Amino acid sequence: MTGRTPTLAVRADLNISLDGSASTTDQTAENPMGEDWFRLVAANAATRTFRERVLGDTSGKGTTGVDDAYAQEYFTNIGAEIMGAGMFGLHHNADDPDWRGWWGDEPPFRVPVFVLTHAPRPSIEMAGGTTFHFLDASPEEALAEATRAAGGADVRIGGGVRTVRSFLAAGLVDRLHVAIAPILLGRGLSLWEDLRGLERRYEVSSEIAESGTVHVTFRR
Amino acid sequence: MTGRTPTLAVRADLNISLDGSASTTDQTAENPMGEDWFRLVAANAATRTFRERVLGDTSGKGTTGVDDAYAQEYFTNIGAEIMGAGMFGLHHNADDPDWRGWWGDEPPFRVPVFVLTHAPRPSIEMAGGTTFHFLDASPEEALAEATRAAGGADVRIGGGVRTVRSFLAAGLVDRLHVAIAPILLGRGLSLWEDLRGLERRYEVSSEIAESGTVHVTFRR
Repeated sequence: MTGRTPTLAVRADLNISLDGSASTTDQTAENPMGEDWFRLVAANAATRTFRERVLGDTSGKGTTGVDDAYAQEYFTNIGAEIMGAGMFGLHHNADDPDWRGWWGDEPPFRVPVFVLTHAPRPSIEMAGGTTFHFLDASPEEALAEATRAAGGADVRIGGGVRTVRSFLAAGLVDRLHVAIAPILLGRGLSLWEDLRGLERRYEVSSEIAESGTVHVTFRR
Repeated sequence: MTGRTPTLAVRADLNISLDGSASTTDQTAENPMGEDWFRLVAANAATRTFRERVLGDTSGKGTTGVDDAYAQEYFTNIGAEIMGAGMFGLHHNADDPDWRGWWGDEPPFRVPVFVLTHAPRPSIEMAGGTTFHFLDASPEEALAEATRAAGGADVRIGGGVRTVRSFLAAGLVDRLHVAIAPILLGRGLSLWEDLRGLERRYEVSSEIAESGTVHVTFRR
């Protein structure tokens, strides 16, 4: 089509269990993340890229196989991110006007991040290139905003699972990558709920990592 | 352990969707199996082994890759099978004393098959080595009976999904193989329901077939 802007990809990546769970339920006061969460992300968190980019570990330690290739890809060519309020920690900190998220002083995103919330607050500029903006918007509106901010790069739908599902249901995701840990959580929020027939709109391919993680990618 | 009988494997194999569904719900009068069922088993049904063994097609046609290797393995070293009443068709034919199952005159099992039912009926000997026996028994009792009949070979838990789940929950399955079709059914009975932590009792490994099917095997 003449004059059409090249389509940039809207991407989503999630760690899920073999039974589809993308959230965990075993949090306790002693173990606020829960053990399940660690098992769900263990293979990803063990990669060299994750250790460097998220944990700030520049020692070069970490796995360098298939899982790491996906971790590298995860951080490549992203110009903006959209996340749900829960992923920013707003559900537990709604009353704290100074809440700056739980991603540290220098969050790993390094791009504009649009947090979806029914109670927007002023933007927060963090070190390292991340600025959090707060939007009360539909998936379509948020995506239009994030696309403008992305400056020609891709937009990530960061999570949580409800947010990713809403963008999938609205037909807005071009590439969905799930890293399936071969464990059964038996509870939590399933990524797959209400997505019957999703594969008909995509090419689906899979790959097994050395860790046993099954990487499944939906592309259109 | 001195005098211990070598442990024979209790095996189960199921075709499931990416969202864990092992049953289908789109049956109609015009399409009594439903379209979903064909999509769920398509890669398996396309194998040379399935075509020969189940459909009686001796032309040598069919796929010969990873899916076929699993299909061959499926039929290897099985001495007896256990199935639920539904898989024998009893739920829809309970009132027909002459019902002989829907597996044709020469069923593909070729071993004693124990059908679990609360209303046992006389055994039925079919052509080709299959004899259907009917048991009102617990998983443990049925397995003891099938093991005696298996003559030193493995016992298969054939299905359906509720039957496989009950044997898994009872800790009786040594090897579970699931062939995951990369489709989302969004409904039906999930294999994974109430099996939280199952993987802790097994080694889990995975393999991708040329068809895109993800084969996951739990072994202990």
